[in-house]
Amino acid sequence: MIRTVGIDGDDTLWHNENLFADTEARYKELLSHHATAEQIGARLYETEMRNLGIFGYGVKSFMLSMIETAIEITEQRIGAADIQQIIQLGREMMAEPVDLLDGVRETVEELAEHYDLLLITKGDLFHQESKVARSGLADHFRAVEIVSEKDPATYRAVLDRHVVDPGAFVMIGNSVRSDITPVVEIGGRGLHIPYHVTWAHEDTQLATHHHEGFWELASIRDAPTKLSELGRA
Amino acid sequence: MIRTVGIDGDDTLWHNENLFADTEARYKELLSHHATAEQIGARLYETEMRNLGIFGYGVKSFMLSMIETAIEITEQRIGAADIQQIIQLGREMMAEPVDLLDGVRETVEELAEHYDLLLITKGDLFHQESKVARSGLADHFRAVEIVSEKDPATYRAVLDRHVVDPGAFVMIGNSVRSDITPVVEIGGRGLHIPYHVTWAHEDTQLATHHHEGFWELASIRDAPTKLSELGRA
Repeated sequence: MIRTVGIDGDDTLWHNENLFADTEARYKELLSHHATAEQIGARLYETEMRNLGIFGYGVKSFMLSMIETAIEITEQRIGAADIQQIIQLGREMMAEPVDLLDGVRETVEELAEHYDLLLITKGDLFHQESKVARSGLADHFRAVEIVSEKDPATYRAVLDRHVVDPGAFVMIGNSVRSDITPVVEIGGRGLHIPYHVTWAHEDTQLATHHHEGFWELASIRDAPTKLSELGRA
Repeated sequence: MIRTVGIDGDDTLWHNENLFADTEARYKELLSHHATAEQIGARLYETEMRNLGIFGYGVKSFMLSMIETAIEITEQRIGAADIQQIIQLGREMMAEPVDLLDGVRETVEELAEHYDLLLITKGDLFHQESKVARSGLADHFRAVEIVSEKDPATYRAVLDRHVVDPGAFVMIGNSVRSDITPVVEIGGRGLHIPYHVTWAHEDTQLATHHHEGFWELASIRDAPTKLSELGRA
């Protein structure tokens, strides 16, 4: 029996990575006199990985990484006006309306009739709360869990807190690394719904086509049927 | 009867505001060719208040506000090397060891024997989690609640989640605005323990010397006695 369904936020319920990609494109344009788009992208990713353990995930960390990379890649020649522009890019990201993926609203409503839903999302507390509120979906969820990292220990803690048996839990999300593998590791199951853009950091290559404990769906619209199949098995 | 005691983190369990004050002093020094310390302080506070609703609390927001203020106050003349320095100041804040206030370790241990303890702290999820972990105090708390704002709705949600009656709840903290007033408003009580530095934003002037529902203590060491007095009353 499946009783509880976890759903990821960014790129599962609402668009997110495309916003980072758009911002990164404008950032590369801003720095185009100093380096090629490829060089900037590589250096930015390097900075982000270096900063992840110090600043965590989210737009503010991304802004700080963009500023640092711009200073480094221009050998400190970047002007203050351009740095102000970079901050403005981040400010616009924070203010961006929450844009739900196709089929999300109806599917979440339908799932909420049959399962306890947990929204389990990673990143900046303040920004994620604001996105959850603006999504208009919060009422369908039994709880919203904003976590700083999605690893097996985090999922175990969340399920313990809600007294959920991992064997009766399925997680739905776009990232194999964050939404699927750690859940399968603690005895739960996963529905992987790829998003059309994946941040390199989340891009776990699947070692095999045989997926132990999880299934791939093309759209969240397919989740209710798949969940009832799994519940019967 | 008092069953549950909430305790704030920053400037109640561990030093925090002094770190912001030290960093701000170094920041003013860095910009001292461009403006007086007073001018810089006033502009920085203005920027922080403007950014609070967009970026939330915490070190990363503070870094972004320092960068913005530096650009504005120098009319875009600040060099990239100085901005790199500002980021470095923030990076050092994030890495700073967690320094417990005097008497905290023994008092928390003692309180944990008599009450369910909740650590209720505001700010950046990633940084607060890291501070809680490094404090070595986490095991004494039934739960750690990191929230983005400390208002009556937040406290009500936290107490509901843990099935705690506000009448049986006391919150201990250094900020009247964040730790005391909203708790009293929902029917709980408070123990206010002032810290020697208060951020202007948290500095609520008490309108009267008659404190309805809360008491002031000089040190957290006085909390166990006060709590048992209140419990008997």
